[in-house]
Amino acid sequence: MTKAVLSALIRPLVEPRLPDWVEPLWFASIDELYELAPEAEIGWFDLNDKEPMIEGVKRAGKLKWLNSIYAGLDFLPHDILRERGVTVTHGAGINAITIAEYVLMGMLDIAKGYREVVRAQDRKEWLLDSPGKRELAESKALLLGYGAIGKLVEQRLAAFDVEVTVVRRSGGENALGPDQWRARLGTFDWVILAVPATPETEGMIGADELAAMKEDAVLVNIARGSVVDQDALVAALGDKTIGAAFLDVTTPEPLPADHPLWELDNAHITMHLSGRAQSQMFQRSADRFIENLDRYERGEPLQPQFDLTLGY
Amino acid sequence: MTKAVLSALIRPLVEPRLPDWVEPLWFASIDELYELAPEAEIGWFDLNDKEPMIEGVKRAGKLKWLNSIYAGLDFLPHDILRERGVTVTHGAGINAITIAEYVLMGMLDIAKGYREVVRAQDRKEWLLDSPGKRELAESKALLLGYGAIGKLVEQRLAAFDVEVTVVRRSGGENALGPDQWRARLGTFDWVILAVPATPETEGMIGADELAAMKEDAVLVNIARGSVVDQDALVAALGDKTIGAAFLDVTTPEPLPADHPLWELDNAHITMHLSGRAQSQMFQRSADRFIENLDRYERGEPLQPQFDLTLGY
Repeated sequence: MTKAVLSALIRPLVEPRLPDWVEPLWFASIDELYELAPEAEIGWFDLNDKEPMIEGVKRAGKLKWLNSIYAGLDFLPHDILRERGVTVTHGAGINAITIAEYVLMGMLDIAKGYREVVRAQDRKEWLLDSPGKRELAESKALLLGYGAIGKLVEQRLAAFDVEVTVVRRSGGENALGPDQWRARLGTFDWVILAVPATPETEGMIGADELAAMKEDAVLVNIARGSVVDQDALVAALGDKTIGAAFLDVTTPEPLPADHPLWELDNAHITMHLSGRAQSQMFQRSADRFIENLDRYERGEPLQPQFDLTLGY
Repeated sequence: MTKAVLSALIRPLVEPRLPDWVEPLWFASIDELYELAPEAEIGWFDLNDKEPMIEGVKRAGKLKWLNSIYAGLDFLPHDILRERGVTVTHGAGINAITIAEYVLMGMLDIAKGYREVVRAQDRKEWLLDSPGKRELAESKALLLGYGAIGKLVEQRLAAFDVEVTVVRRSGGENALGPDQWRARLGTFDWVILAVPATPETEGMIGADELAAMKEDAVLVNIARGSVVDQDALVAALGDKTIGAAFLDVTTPEPLPADHPLWELDNAHITMHLSGRAQSQMFQRSADRFIENLDRYERGEPLQPQFDLTLGY
């Protein structure tokens, strides 16, 4: 029997489908995780807080496979996992659909000034003209990050007749290389951040990049707060050197009530809700785990794997 | 010289491009329209109010071609125009792009509970979960009305992996005939109204149709308020026998501040702004008019023509 230490949260979706070679050990508290982790060959250690997940990993000396519902596992102790030869499967793509939908919602919200329409609804006031008069059609978007989310965003933008330029190492048609996009920043109406959080992407949008953008350009960030130099962004929004920002992610999270971003009428803050705006994530994650158990038994590669060297 | 009586509002976009066989007579007031209308062979009589446009048409005894920026010309005296053999060109499709974009915005707004997110932003409150958890992906939409707007909506919905069923006389794949859709109403997550306002479509969504919809179904109306039995809709929303309504159009417009629709938290009212949420309408309309002047001179059919018999 192979011991699998699994979060009790996922139990109703996983237990009825476990193969008989797996002995599940369910944990419902941090203490139970700490107690059971050393026995785990397979682990699904997800918790709301990062610190006890890290500690659980440290204690799991026999671990061969770590699974997670989360896509961004930059916070895990990559060195320890690499040393121990642990395979890590993660949630890349599991909430990609809803996040891609959220990106389009945010762009349309800003294009049409919908937030002002909501406020007018609440005042029972019949507006006579639209607070926003942009069309997505024939606008230009730069899409940084071309993983599961980026590809779904690209597909949706294309249907709106948005001209999408992606950034990828290999270049190609309608694509720019990593050293080419900065020089072209001034040509885009939308700059969409869907990159993974790595040392390479940290602060990739700073004062220089913001200054290079069009004055009515919109920055959309559904990656990580750390990808943007937030002080520089606050300044750019305050000085209106860019048009607006749609920020699903910020630094820190939650954003304190006295943070200047809340005061800016061109900052649209959506509280890291994009991935949560669906009800299928647990089901999809359970489905994947069950499929990966079959692959694990047959010695086939698990998927999708988190790359402990690249960091995504 | 052919006399054309034209709204002064469009003058800056039209005058520099008029061919030399046209003698433009610009009106800047209702009185000027009434005075000039009898001389018009070509007329562009658009005003904010319908009554003086109707009166202008009545006075235009020499009119051969009437142009309008508006798509919905159901209010014009069709019998008079038919009797006099007037060709009518209208704005069908001119704001179709922005209206289609608005439809998707409204659906995403409701799917993700975005209105609640806006309200939380205004309170500087960091929500911990999404107020809406729907995905458009794999949902089912019934699209009533398959003109310029309907086709653009269909194209965008397809990119979101929405299964779209259209209603048209000829039937076909993923299509239902006019006498088939009612029996299938209970199978759709979204019912989208993009039909023209005609006697045939008046009140086409009434108490029976609302009762047949799924309890979490969303009605989207970007057609005309008169297409829906609004009292029945208020009852259905109040009793929550359907999920929500996204209403760009209402009866009457503007909706009085004490109308019960404003009180319903599942009614999303957008004040007929969808077509106004763009800045290209006048330019596109002027471009079309100039192109049609060439066709008029050559004796070719003008386009797009408003059908005075069908009423759209």
